[in-house]
Amino acid sequence: MPSEKHKWYIDHTSPGTAHIYGIENYIRSFQTRYQQVEIADTEMFGRLLFLDGKVQSAESDEYIYHEALVHPAMLMHPAPRRVLVIGGGEGATLREVLKYQSVEELIMVDLDKEVVENCRKYLESWHQGSFNDNRVTLYFMDAREYLENENGAFDVIISDVPEPVEEGPALKLFTNQYFELIKSRLSEKGMFSLQAGDTSMPFIASHSAINNTLNKVMPFVRPYRAFVPSYNTEWGFILSAPAEMELPSTSLFDKLVEERKLELQYFDGETARAIFALPKDMRKRLEEETRVIDDNHLMPIY
Amino acid sequence: MPSEKHKWYIDHTSPGTAHIYGIENYIRSFQTRYQQVEIADTEMFGRLLFLDGKVQSAESDEYIYHEALVHPAMLMHPAPRRVLVIGGGEGATLREVLKYQSVEELIMVDLDKEVVENCRKYLESWHQGSFNDNRVTLYFMDAREYLENENGAFDVIISDVPEPVEEGPALKLFTNQYFELIKSRLSEKGMFSLQAGDTSMPFIASHSAINNTLNKVMPFVRPYRAFVPSYNTEWGFILSAPAEMELPSTSLFDKLVEERKLELQYFDGETARAIFALPKDMRKRLEEETRVIDDNHLMPIY
Amino acid sequence: MPSEKHKWYIDHTSPGTAHIYGIENYIRSFQTRYQQVEIADTEMFGRLLFLDGKVQSAESDEYIYHEALVHPAMLMHPAPRRVLVIGGGEGATLREVLKYQSVEELIMVDLDKEVVENCRKYLESWHQGSFNDNRVTLYFMDAREYLENENGAFDVIISDVPEPVEEGPALKLFTNQYFELIKSRLSEKGMFSLQAGDTSMPFIASHSAINNTLNKVMPFVRPYRAFVPSYNTEWGFILSAPAEMELPSTSLFDKLVEERKLELQYFDGETARAIFALPKDMRKRLEEETRVIDDNHLMPIY
Amino acid sequence: MPSEKHKWYIDHTSPGTAHIYGIENYIRSFQTRYQQVEIADTEMFGRLLFLDGKVQSAESDEYIYHEALVHPAMLMHPAPRRVLVIGGGEGATLREVLKYQSVEELIMVDLDKEVVENCRKYLESWHQGSFNDNRVTLYFMDAREYLENENGAFDVIISDVPEPVEEGPALKLFTNQYFELIKSRLSEKGMFSLQAGDTSMPFIASHSAINNTLNKVMPFVRPYRAFVPSYNTEWGFILSAPAEMELPSTSLFDKLVEERKLELQYFDGETARAIFALPKDMRKRLEEETRVIDDNHLMPIY
Repeated sequence: MPSEKHKWYIDHTSPGTAHIYGIENYIRSFQTRYQQVEIADTEMFGRLLFLDGKVQSAESDEYIYHEALVHPAMLMHPAPRRVLVIGGGEGATLREVLKYQSVEELIMVDLDKEVVENCRKYLESWHQGSFNDNRVTLYFMDAREYLENENGAFDVIISDVPEPVEEGPALKLFTNQYFELIKSRLSEKGMFSLQAGDTSMPFIASHSAINNTLNKVMPFVRPYRAFVPSYNTEWGFILSAPAEMELPSTSLFDKLVEERKLELQYFDGETARAIFALPKDMRKRLEEETRVIDDNHLMPIY
Repeated sequence: MPSEKHKWYIDHTSPGTAHIYGIENYIRSFQTRYQQVEIADTEMFGRLLFLDGKVQSAESDEYIYHEALVHPAMLMHPAPRRVLVIGGGEGATLREVLKYQSVEELIMVDLDKEVVENCRKYLESWHQGSFNDNRVTLYFMDAREYLENENGAFDVIISDVPEPVEEGPALKLFTNQYFELIKSRLSEKGMFSLQAGDTSMPFIASHSAINNTLNKVMPFVRPYRAFVPSYNTEWGFILSAPAEMELPSTSLFDKLVEERKLELQYFDGETARAIFALPKDMRKRLEEETRVIDDNHLMPIY
Repeated sequence: MPSEKHKWYIDHTSPGTAHIYGIENYIRSFQTRYQQVEIADTEMFGRLLFLDGKVQSAESDEYIYHEALVHPAMLMHPAPRRVLVIGGGEGATLREVLKYQSVEELIMVDLDKEVVENCRKYLESWHQGSFNDNRVTLYFMDAREYLENENGAFDVIISDVPEPVEEGPALKLFTNQYFELIKSRLSEKGMFSLQAGDTSMPFIASHSAINNTLNKVMPFVRPYRAFVPSYNTEWGFILSAPAEMELPSTSLFDKLVEERKLELQYFDGETARAIFALPKDMRKRLEEETRVIDDNHLMPIY
Repeated sequence: MPSEKHKWYIDHTSPGTAHIYGIENYIRSFQTRYQQVEIADTEMFGRLLFLDGKVQSAESDEYIYHEALVHPAMLMHPAPRRVLVIGGGEGATLREVLKYQSVEELIMVDLDKEVVENCRKYLESWHQGSFNDNRVTLYFMDAREYLENENGAFDVIISDVPEPVEEGPALKLFTNQYFELIKSRLSEKGMFSLQAGDTSMPFIASHSAINNTLNKVMPFVRPYRAFVPSYNTEWGFILSAPAEMELPSTSLFDKLVEERKLELQYFDGETARAIFALPKDMRKRLEEETRVIDDNHLMPIY
């Protein structure tokens, strides 16, 4: 007589809030050396990837997250040839970067081989074969170690790793010192974009601290955010560059998308307008931020 | 040993999705003639109002919703003197309208006296005494009936009633015919804004149908949306007018806010830029909409 | 920071009550022609089998259920040679019956081949190889059809099929007419035992109706119940026979267990004393029951 | 469209198990000096009392718990005149004791005045005015302190305080030394009964340790248990006495109930038979227990 749903996944966003997802079917559940992984099918969002109990990516709306993460940085570089993706195990960040014909070399560095292998197998609609593209080279290692030992320059670097809300290896990928390292590896007109945590006012602490840290390092820093239905929140990103510049206008973004022959579902000039304009309360909060994430005082921020 | 939270409120957004709120304390729970009402305190969002199982308003972020609902319409009228608020039982819509010194008469029509009385008593931080303002007149009746029997014109009409996702009296407040009635009661430079449902892609059907219906009636129609943390989603509004016009620029909105001496937490020029610019996927969805909500074929839309 | 459990299975026992199980791992989820099946591992109860959203059997305490179901009937027959098990897909009912050296032929009739095959593969600790015992014959068909076409007599018949709380094929396995059919297939000293639903006072309706129906057919009828931790309730059984008889004393049951060299974890003389003695409120409720389940007025009972 | 229940109370019995109760209405929620208290109405169990997140008592089935706790001890004393109840804030333990005409003096000692006052006001169907009976004297203080300063003897002592599964004042009311104190305050034919925790196999640790501790102190110790629907489990009690004796037979218990003119819903001779007979697995577990709860090594047991 009662509810017909029995399998629920509970994603706690705080001790007193949670989102619950009715699961049609669990596809894969496993613990890697680094994290707990679930791949599951839902009625509302299609296939979902959960890492350490948090929704990571949904079949129905990953295009929003990945287009927002990739295209502002890629379009603002005149002709990105060599690109680095840090994290991004699902392969959808690769997919978006590979849409650019100028790209000759795309390096992806991810810590967790087991996650990438499972994404390759079970998240086909995400990567769409991108892992097999000749331009792609995969390294399974710590991104910081990779960058310290790699001297070549990148036109665009895209960071798609979990925000520093918990202890773990990702904590070191949001510090002052790390961003200096990134800066030193960008080519002259290089761009750096990263996923940067929830921007919903009750949960903005992490985003805000990352933004302030980047501001100490990069002359050009632009936080932005996109609402992702399966996350139940607005998700934050930050675009930055080692040189001063201006954000393209709505019409210039439209022109760039057209010139580069991109087929996009989410991003265009008006979308850029929507996501780079920040509400007054959020701007105030970002302006008041004083924390700088530092290698010498590493701790989770939330 | 386990969780310290025991009282949870579950807001089902679909058979397979829900948001859950840990409750510190239930303040009031009652069933009126029209709806089930809960007022409860939470750690994350402060006091919350739930109607018929859906979160309606949170102490911590109702300013986002109410500023977004009220100010675009009020600012675009050169000098609103006579204003009508439909619904809006919490009194926060009144609060925002009363910030305008030009307002001489503010009429509020709400169906549910019991809800309004409880909001007056338990949601003080929402209305902040607005119900006692001399300019305010309250009617407890059906808004459509009120409008059919009222011949005077309004400079601004603001509709703050539940969207038509379920059977109920609100269904008739989103039709073609009703919007014609609204139009006939607007003064020459009159503006009409309404709350218009969830705009998250999986739940946009209702918003989209309302928008299309308004498009049949009003020459100027601009859907917009604001992310409200306690709703876990972007919420939709629609601004409209019986005459063609243009949306003010960022700087003009800023100038208007300053001229009218408004103290706002959320709305300003850049916020307007953010909320009126719509992402590509949402624009596409709105453009493809064909449904018109009609008195003769009333049914819930979701 | 919050709960470390994310996968939960919700077993609704009524619209306003449910038990929730934190799942370590889902082993198998599938829909057969007859039912929805889940096999999952939990910390508290080990492996669990769920059918149509209800917990069916737990690794940690299935011995309680299966010993209670099988041994009173088997021990009260002087030397059971030919035994029929109806349902009992997990194979644990077989396992208990096979402990009797007197058993020469054990027939199991289950509707759902797919469930039995999965139990064979994934519930090894339940059946412990019983399906491979030479004495066992399996039929995948409707039990009623089987009995109508089978003329031989059985010394013990054990029914282990879902109680009639919902529409479905099991409904016909609890009627007056069906029990007459069972009676006609029992040998002279034959015994019949069946699982007979929850006996917790708020949920006893089904048990009570089955008991009353059996009372119309069999001269000897003894309802009993055992608390099963993973069910969160006391579970009901009914022992019956086509001839008047007396329940063995505590010491006689102990003697029978010893003579037949049974190794049991749950059942013995004192356990029999505990489970056949019924509390006053339950006895009153059973005495007041008037419903008889009849082929001609089949409907779910709850 | 989805579930009509929104208010749920979650009672976690372990990190991976919980029972959830749909709440019709919260009556009272408050924090006393000692515990968190909720009084709420449900469809299934009527009014419920929760203490520190655990269901304590339900309108629909508190008679099971309270009759099981009180009557074995009271009936086994030839004529109880002076009775002590420790804890039992709802007043239902008083109610059962007051059914005995032989009782002249009934002292209740409870730590938490605020709980008792709220029970008096909101749990009328529990106490049924017992607090106003002339024979009753109430003390709000620590039971151990009370007993240390009270030299008179009691015919029956009934302990109705939370089992020692968490830090708190109740921990000291289950020790070796405390039971010696109880023993010293019992009259010659005195009886002592106490509520003694969940006896469901996964949760029996606390019950088992209490039983073993009592065995070190009292010559006569009989653990027993009753299934209480709203608890979703079998609940344990222990009957003890400072002198060797035998448990009355089924018929003797029936005779005693009749002689003393008790009107009971749950307890009688056959119920006694059911609750004092323990299943084999539980007996084995109790026999193997070695822990003794001692003032000098106090710690929660679970």
